[in-house]
Amino acid sequence: MSDTNFDPEAALAAKGILLPPAAKPLGNYLTWSSYGTWIATSGQLPWVDGKLGFHGKIGSDLTPEQGYQAARVAALNALAQVRDALGSLSRVSQIIRVEGTFQVAPGFLGFPEALNGASDVIDLAFGERGRHCRMVYTNTEMPMNTPVMIVIHAGMA
Amino acid sequence: MSDTNFDPEAALAAKGILLPPAAKPLGNYLTWSSYGTWIATSGQLPWVDGKLGFHGKIGSDLTPEQGYQAARVAALNALAQVRDALGSLSRVSQIIRVEGTFQVAPGFLGFPEALNGASDVIDLAFGERGRHCRMVYTNTEMPMNTPVMIVIHAGMA
Amino acid sequence: MSDTNFDPEAALAAKGILLPPAAKPLGNYLTWSSYGTWIATSGQLPWVDGKLGFHGKIGSDLTPEQGYQAARVAALNALAQVRDALGSLSRVSQIIRVEGTFQVAPGFLGFPEALNGASDVIDLAFGERGRHCRMVYTNTEMPMNTPVMIVIHAGMA
Repeated sequence: MSDTNFDPEAALAAKGILLPPAAKPLGNYLTWSSYGTWIATSGQLPWVDGKLGFHGKIGSDLTPEQGYQAARVAALNALAQVRDALGSLSRVSQIIRVEGTFQVAPGFLGFPEALNGASDVIDLAFGERGRHCRMVYTNTEMPMNTPVMIVIHAGMA
Repeated sequence: MSDTNFDPEAALAAKGILLPPAAKPLGNYLTWSSYGTWIATSGQLPWVDGKLGFHGKIGSDLTPEQGYQAARVAALNALAQVRDALGSLSRVSQIIRVEGTFQVAPGFLGFPEALNGASDVIDLAFGERGRHCRMVYTNTEMPMNTPVMIVIHAGMA
Repeated sequence: MSDTNFDPEAALAAKGILLPPAAKPLGNYLTWSSYGTWIATSGQLPWVDGKLGFHGKIGSDLTPEQGYQAARVAALNALAQVRDALGSLSRVSQIIRVEGTFQVAPGFLGFPEALNGASDVIDLAFGERGRHCRMVYTNTEMPMNTPVMIVIHAGMA
């Protein structure tokens, strides 16, 4: 693309936010795949410096604010997979869809707000090109006791 | 398209079924997005006149028949998003995939039948072009205590 | 395709693995749909000779190894749907994405390993063309008390 001003990673860095390295899969699968110009990540966990940064249920083990942060960190890990796929986030034409799956305490219904942790950081990085639809799930058991997993579907220029 | 007989909204109206207005999002996201000729909605709740029309778990708070109706209403809300995306449901070439997520009482397994509430109304509106694959989930906590959320993936002509 | 050596069904048969017939839907929907060259299956259960081969929760009713086998059988049922869509698995250009949903005992976190039952058999059949991203869910209630449902997204040549 000729739009040299579009640099999502620089937009994040300007806010002091660094993308982590792309995490390894937890089994016999790829952390992203592409089909034509469409890219999907596998479910990404909130890795921080190679360790899971958050554990347990939002609403009991974790506060709503920690849930928001966990979703943000998981989204950054998903963006790291997209960068791995494309070489640079500047090649993303569109963030299409975000899927957020949460582990929450019984009766805790504030997880759409937690998912804003993902949506807001995508906004920050991509602006208009980051405007996405999304779906939110709650699961009672999650891999490694993570409070959140994020999937990103993106289009490439 | 030149097929002037294809009018899903009129087919619904002939049965006394009106599409609601497209609901607002519950957070920082779009209620639908498109990529090429493919459209996906965010998870849609069973809104009736701007209020959630159904609450709680199917099989305890709600009867199976109410679950079926809730899925139908949520699907109509999803179709309202597709209409918002395209201007008219006549431009839909295909309903591709339906995702239904339900909140159910422990041991209640009748939710595939409840999801027929969505599939049947899509049939009514779109006929052959409405033939879709689908996936069904159960979640223990759902936004605003809704019994169901519906996602529709559609193709446009 | 001119690659006459690419025969996923023969690769499975060489290991003594036969694809089941494509199962019927459990409601008013299609067991697969396509859009352009993209195919998605509905959620597939672990059918064996027309009956559900596994029931209940992995980690209590079923061992982890049985969970792995259930995911493998459900994946074979999903591949049977893809074969039904295309006439032959040789026409698959790529397995794009696998979605696995599991019913597990409270505290049982070994379901990503169970999902390898699906990924490994896809590997066996498709090799490089079978390399996929995936997402894993846990649901407390599942249709017919199945321990697993598998969705496959594939591209056709």
